[in-house]
Amino acid sequence: MEARIDRVTLRERERERERERELEKEMQSLQEKASEWSGVDTGDAFAIDDDTNLFQKLGGLQTFINLSTNFYNRVYDDDEEWFRSIFDKSDKDKAIQNQYEFLVQRLGGPPLYSQRRGHPALIARHRPFHLTHKAAERWLHHMQQALDNTSHIDDDSKIMLINFFRHTAYFLLAGIEQKNQSLHPCKDAPGRHPCTNF
Amino acid sequence: MEARIDRVTLRERERERERERELEKEMQSLQEKASEWSGVDTGDAFAIDDDTNLFQKLGGLQTFINLSTNFYNRVYDDDEEWFRSIFDKSDKDKAIQNQYEFLVQRLGGPPLYSQRRGHPALIARHRPFHLTHKAAERWLHHMQQALDNTSHIDDDSKIMLINFFRHTAYFLLAGIEQKNQSLHPCKDAPGRHPCTNF
Repeated sequence: MEARIDRVTLRERERERERERELEKEMQSLQEKASEWSGVDTGDAFAIDDDTNLFQKLGGLQTFINLSTNFYNRVYDDDEEWFRSIFDKSDKDKAIQNQYEFLVQRLGGPPLYSQRRGHPALIARHRPFHLTHKAAERWLHHMQQALDNTSHIDDDSKIMLINFFRHTAYFLLAGIEQKNQSLHPCKDAPGRHPCTNF
Repeated sequence: MEARIDRVTLRERERERERERELEKEMQSLQEKASEWSGVDTGDAFAIDDDTNLFQKLGGLQTFINLSTNFYNRVYDDDEEWFRSIFDKSDKDKAIQNQYEFLVQRLGGPPLYSQRRGHPALIARHRPFHLTHKAAERWLHHMQQALDNTSHIDDDSKIMLINFFRHTAYFLLAGIEQKNQSLHPCKDAPGRHPCTNF
């Protein structure tokens, strides 16, 4: 009996290891998937880091408050109910603040986001939202409009920013899709009731 | 029949919204949980951002290569098999590179990590690992040793760094625990076979 338990434990442990290895490979391919889906390669997506400090170049905090306010005004007023409803559980002012604080920090300004909320943990923090390719494109559409309607953002910076946003949107999508797939307990164990795994 | 389908759809949608609202609240409390579990408040955890550029202050890239090499030497040689085995599916050189590139970028150096791997997405990328409170403490123990045995790291910076690491370790733990709980499909639907949700 003991030997049997040992065998079961060993087999289960081996299966768990195998699953961990798979997960790690999947996580490593996130960036590739994001590039493929978004059509933006890594170099272009992170050109925001190559240039001079974008936070300063674009005029500092007020520009980013304006950009995020303009963006979320469009999102919360969207005619498309399916898109608007993705956000209707969130407070608009908080959404604006989360976004501009993240952008300020990411683009070379003061670390406002981490001081208030810790690590961005982008994939995990987007998990509550129902993201799809269609939603990513609608998000990017509004962001393009917001960029075009915010002062102090020159054309070169606009291109850099939209590349960064496009790549990031698909990075999130890839991360969330992977997670949902991998954590579906039935995936690797057809015929076994998944609840026995917990 | 149609009316019934509408009712079911509406109820399911409301249930999904409710779950999303819960998830969002949980994600918002991550930082608080990390502070409570780690004993490090947010101000102390992110004091790494207050000071002058820590990357430059500590001597640049080589210091961080040394720190991460020293750290992973300890991890991969750990006497405690349960801890060592958390890492045995990963390549040691890659683990070293991922860590020092992240630190260099996070502490004010060139964005090596994002140029190669995209956003850090800390919680999602740690998902393949089997993290526990005990493992977090063992990780921190090795990191403290590595900090103490790497040149060019002054005592003040050591304290700032270990506070950052301690808070981050528990932030990851909180994020991963939440995820596993919330994504257990049976959690909110006892009696319903979870596979019908997919």
